[in-house]
Amino acid sequence: MIEICEVGPRDGLQNECKMISTSIKVELITRLIDAGIRNIEAVSFVNPKVVPQMADAEEVLKLLPKGNNVRFGGLVLSRSGLERALKTDIDFLHVVTTTSDSFNQRNAKRTVEQAVEELSKVIIEGAESGKGVAGVLGTAFGCPFEGEVPLTRVLSVAEQFIEAGCTEITLADTTGMANPIQVQTVTAAFYKQFGKGFPLGLHFHNTRGLGLANTLAGYQAGVRRFDSSIAGLGGCPFAPKAVGNVCTEDMVNMFHGMGIETGADLNQLVETAKWLENHMDRPLDGMLMKAGIA
Amino acid sequence: MIEICEVGPRDGLQNECKMISTSIKVELITRLIDAGIRNIEAVSFVNPKVVPQMADAEEVLKLLPKGNNVRFGGLVLSRSGLERALKTDIDFLHVVTTTSDSFNQRNAKRTVEQAVEELSKVIIEGAESGKGVAGVLGTAFGCPFEGEVPLTRVLSVAEQFIEAGCTEITLADTTGMANPIQVQTVTAAFYKQFGKGFPLGLHFHNTRGLGLANTLAGYQAGVRRFDSSIAGLGGCPFAPKAVGNVCTEDMVNMFHGMGIETGADLNQLVETAKWLENHMDRPLDGMLMKAGIA
Repeated sequence: MIEICEVGPRDGLQNECKMISTSIKVELITRLIDAGIRNIEAVSFVNPKVVPQMADAEEVLKLLPKGNNVRFGGLVLSRSGLERALKTDIDFLHVVTTTSDSFNQRNAKRTVEQAVEELSKVIIEGAESGKGVAGVLGTAFGCPFEGEVPLTRVLSVAEQFIEAGCTEITLADTTGMANPIQVQTVTAAFYKQFGKGFPLGLHFHNTRGLGLANTLAGYQAGVRRFDSSIAGLGGCPFAPKAVGNVCTEDMVNMFHGMGIETGADLNQLVETAKWLENHMDRPLDGMLMKAGIA
Repeated sequence: MIEICEVGPRDGLQNECKMISTSIKVELITRLIDAGIRNIEAVSFVNPKVVPQMADAEEVLKLLPKGNNVRFGGLVLSRSGLERALKTDIDFLHVVTTTSDSFNQRNAKRTVEQAVEELSKVIIEGAESGKGVAGVLGTAFGCPFEGEVPLTRVLSVAEQFIEAGCTEITLADTTGMANPIQVQTVTAAFYKQFGKGFPLGLHFHNTRGLGLANTLAGYQAGVRRFDSSIAGLGGCPFAPKAVGNVCTEDMVNMFHGMGIETGADLNQLVETAKWLENHMDRPLDGMLMKAGIA
């Protein structure tokens, strides 16, 4: 059994040019829940001036169906985002930094050290409020500006986030630079430092076609939670030529083929992907929605 | 070290709508050789009325650069194809059948048993002529019409081909139905029956996004030869919604990232993929040629 963390409504839509209405977002998330997804990164509490697509976070959360053991996560990048999040009934805060100074300067206008210092306070306050807090570490498998990001740096940021109160860590391959051997090396080092039981998630982009190969490698290394995006939505506006996240239904198809449960209904996911494509202004990247379920 | 068998000039071009001139084919193959590829499925001796794109097999072979330790392969599907092939200086005959009756009836208008009987004679005669003969078994990981193809059937066809004189076998996932666990199961069963030293190749299509994940699984299971297609060219006109082969430069990028040599120059492959795209009437599927080398 693996757990999917569906990030299409956030990482996906955030990077689409077409503005999507609140009602479409709510319908998308509702469809994902109906398809069996139980962990959804639904919104981002980012500055609405910077990312207008995510400006309706509070409204989306108000309209979402409650119950069903669904966990909703919201991205928090700063103290002001935390303040917004704490006024909602969001379940989990996803506190994000990258681990490369060059990337973080471009993305968040501060060094990694500065970001970790500020975000540690956010994590402490979030955890004290009773919310779950997960840490997400971008560029953990490489930076388009710096190349390799030292593993010691990634683990050090993880350690500081965990000390501040994160009960989960997700390592993100922001611009699709990871390879399967590296995934196994990084994952093994993480488990060695923080214990095999620590809830580690992996977040891959399919920029160079390696999304599912890296997911497979992560599974083989013991990871049981993977971020993915319905229809392969998403990208990163700050990264050159980034493309979407690993596609949810393509990933589910792989795991089901391997005899590994996901809790999701593949047919409903494919229907949701097709429905979503009708609401975007471009063909989406998912493969299964074109080829059909085998 | 892995060996690439580049199938773009054959499996790739065969399934493109745009007719490609002999001189472009020759330039493509020459560029692939310059980029370090040493095993190329260059032509098909199929009926020119059925596949006009491959009608110039003899002319292509005459114009190809000789030497450089390059091995050229040509597809042979019948006795008439064999007769054509034996009049050329092709190095290897790639004798192909599928392993599913439904698929083979549609594709070759005979049962698998009938095909194996006829092709065994072709293999014997080809081997006696001094050519190398490789057997290629399509739908080895599933058939779009029948679903699962029994492993015993696949191994039985392999056995008959080997007995007739094939010194190599390639298992092909014609319509992209394989998953990584299945790849490991089938590969292990093959090696158990024919020995770990037997030269086994794998041929994946990226129809459902699993091409590189399946390649990784095959590598982990001990396989060291993989078919791929420059820029992800290719498909199968007889298979519903089939898409291209695993993309050569995306696969090389994965292996090089993992520290595994391929003998190929990644920059030259990407340049060749871009050059080729300029000669086709559609954007090609390769990811690295869009995202850039990390």
